[in-house]
Amino acid sequence: MEKHIGEQTVRFANPPTITATAAIVGPKEGEGPLAQYFDVVSQDALFGTDSWEKAESELSRQTIILAVQKANLQLGDIQYILAGDLLNQETGTTFGVRDLGRPFFGLFGACSAIGEAMTLGAMIIDGGFANNIVASASSHFCAAEKTFRFPLELGTQRPPTASWTVTGDGAVVLSAQGAGPYVTTATTGAVVDLGVKDSNNMGAAMAPAAADVLIKHFQDLGIQPDYYDVIATGDLGAVGRDLLLQLMDKAGYNLHHNHKDCGLMIFDREKQDVHAGGSGCGCSAATFAGYFYRQLLRGEINKMLLVPTGALHSVVTVQQGESIPAIAHAVAFERAMSHNER
Amino acid sequence: MEKHIGEQTVRFANPPTITATAAIVGPKEGEGPLAQYFDVVSQDALFGTDSWEKAESELSRQTIILAVQKANLQLGDIQYILAGDLLNQETGTTFGVRDLGRPFFGLFGACSAIGEAMTLGAMIIDGGFANNIVASASSHFCAAEKTFRFPLELGTQRPPTASWTVTGDGAVVLSAQGAGPYVTTATTGAVVDLGVKDSNNMGAAMAPAAADVLIKHFQDLGIQPDYYDVIATGDLGAVGRDLLLQLMDKAGYNLHHNHKDCGLMIFDREKQDVHAGGSGCGCSAATFAGYFYRQLLRGEINKMLLVPTGALHSVVTVQQGESIPAIAHAVAFERAMSHNER
Repeated sequence: MEKHIGEQTVRFANPPTITATAAIVGPKEGEGPLAQYFDVVSQDALFGTDSWEKAESELSRQTIILAVQKANLQLGDIQYILAGDLLNQETGTTFGVRDLGRPFFGLFGACSAIGEAMTLGAMIIDGGFANNIVASASSHFCAAEKTFRFPLELGTQRPPTASWTVTGDGAVVLSAQGAGPYVTTATTGAVVDLGVKDSNNMGAAMAPAAADVLIKHFQDLGIQPDYYDVIATGDLGAVGRDLLLQLMDKAGYNLHHNHKDCGLMIFDREKQDVHAGGSGCGCSAATFAGYFYRQLLRGEINKMLLVPTGALHSVVTVQQGESIPAIAHAVAFERAMSHNER
Repeated sequence: MEKHIGEQTVRFANPPTITATAAIVGPKEGEGPLAQYFDVVSQDALFGTDSWEKAESELSRQTIILAVQKANLQLGDIQYILAGDLLNQETGTTFGVRDLGRPFFGLFGACSAIGEAMTLGAMIIDGGFANNIVASASSHFCAAEKTFRFPLELGTQRPPTASWTVTGDGAVVLSAQGAGPYVTTATTGAVVDLGVKDSNNMGAAMAPAAADVLIKHFQDLGIQPDYYDVIATGDLGAVGRDLLLQLMDKAGYNLHHNHKDCGLMIFDREKQDVHAGGSGCGCSAATFAGYFYRQLLRGEINKMLLVPTGALHSVVTVQQGESIPAIAHAVAFERAMSHNER
């Protein structure tokens, strides 16, 4: 078990390569600051279907297929698809992969899904069980509002702490061989619940989980935050980001210089009326697959830590007065093998 | 990638051992034919809580802890918990593991969850990423009826093709070292959807997925069904079992002698009014953890193939007129290393 480092971290012996990524988003994300980095901006939020749930499945299907094409592979070259979403019984994903005919591991980590998918996918490859896998995660604003809050038709007001679910999917092809960027280490989170009960303030619910996995990551590997050019959390938003920085300060880790939050990058909060920022499985997945992957490829950054964050509640648990458990997974990427200290 | 055999199968280089299992069930399962094999039969379907969802979480929590105790391990010895269930956003599982403090991979494969969990768990161990993991899957009749069909208070009639969701959890501790039984191979299913739309006939929806993964398993490994003493599907029930045997006959594989279905074992259909049989994530998980694991330990069987089966629909997809995609995963167990042909 020499690959297991400290409490919760693994270091890959033969770090899997990202061979290609794909990011497809909806119209609102196409008006945001990262628009130019997405492969496709759909002007049709229904993606040619007649329901929000079918739209998310179509989004998921198209993004996975596009990632495989961009990797110059056929679907048959992909040994496993690992993917997840937020909808009840994950039908965004299960109907998305329905016609792809590939072995499928459905994952549920709420908005931490792409972190979970890349961690398990990298383990599968480094363990010698596959040459290529696809990791993918999707969310859809309209399907999420219907599932978790109110049908859009009601025009319900949202508090300033609420976030805006990203309509988007990010898919990543990981391969046993290739020229990088590489997945080098992964710290898998435990569920953390400090008792936040407001499902319109998920940033506050998730910040402790992000802090917990970050502290474990730094401790397990004996590194400091400045090891990375960027540390990007998934969808904490403005409220959650402030809390995270406070929690990390208290723990003796300074994240003020290199921390970014995908939820604060994908929308322009001044112009786009998204309240606390973007959220959803697709937020960190599309931001990583679209923006950060290109930064790594171009050498604009050399080392980054992605920390997708998930709130593990449901409408039923909120109605029953339960607090909101959260989880976060940290996955490290390095541009070139020479940058590894292994 | 020498561990990958054929299209969809892996053979473990150092087969993980099952160190212990635990199975906890509800009152009705405690009146069924397998009652004596479960570690705990709760006489309280609420498991001391005040809602069906909380009951499932408590069931999940207790079963995972019991499995770790029976393995003579501490929770801190478990590197990962891999678990899933059927509820919206998997709150049966996420609230179940909330206080356990261990790195957690949430899985969604509907009732195939324990197959997915043991496959990924065995990959994690054989890949060198952990010494011990727990794989677990739960379901609860009352929570499932509320989620998928009607609140029990309505007394809604059920057609003869409907199944009865098992209230139960089966948890399995897999370890890098030990005296067996071993997880030797695993064939991971793709989503299969032949167009069945009746959510009261999930056996018919799932049988093609079970046949698909079984055929891949036999082809990939070049073996016949009689290689195994038992081939146990998860929860096809009476309707699905008949369809599976027909499909396998057509494909040239005779399963009539050694096929069992956990859904037909856990209840007595003559006396217990469960219609087509038992179903749910807990059906195959508790039947394997309670019954088959003891059979393997005692040498009553030496080789078995477990094929948990899952229907990947939701209430929303059914209401939108969609058919029911299904998936099944095959996981092989052998009692002693000398029985392996590796």
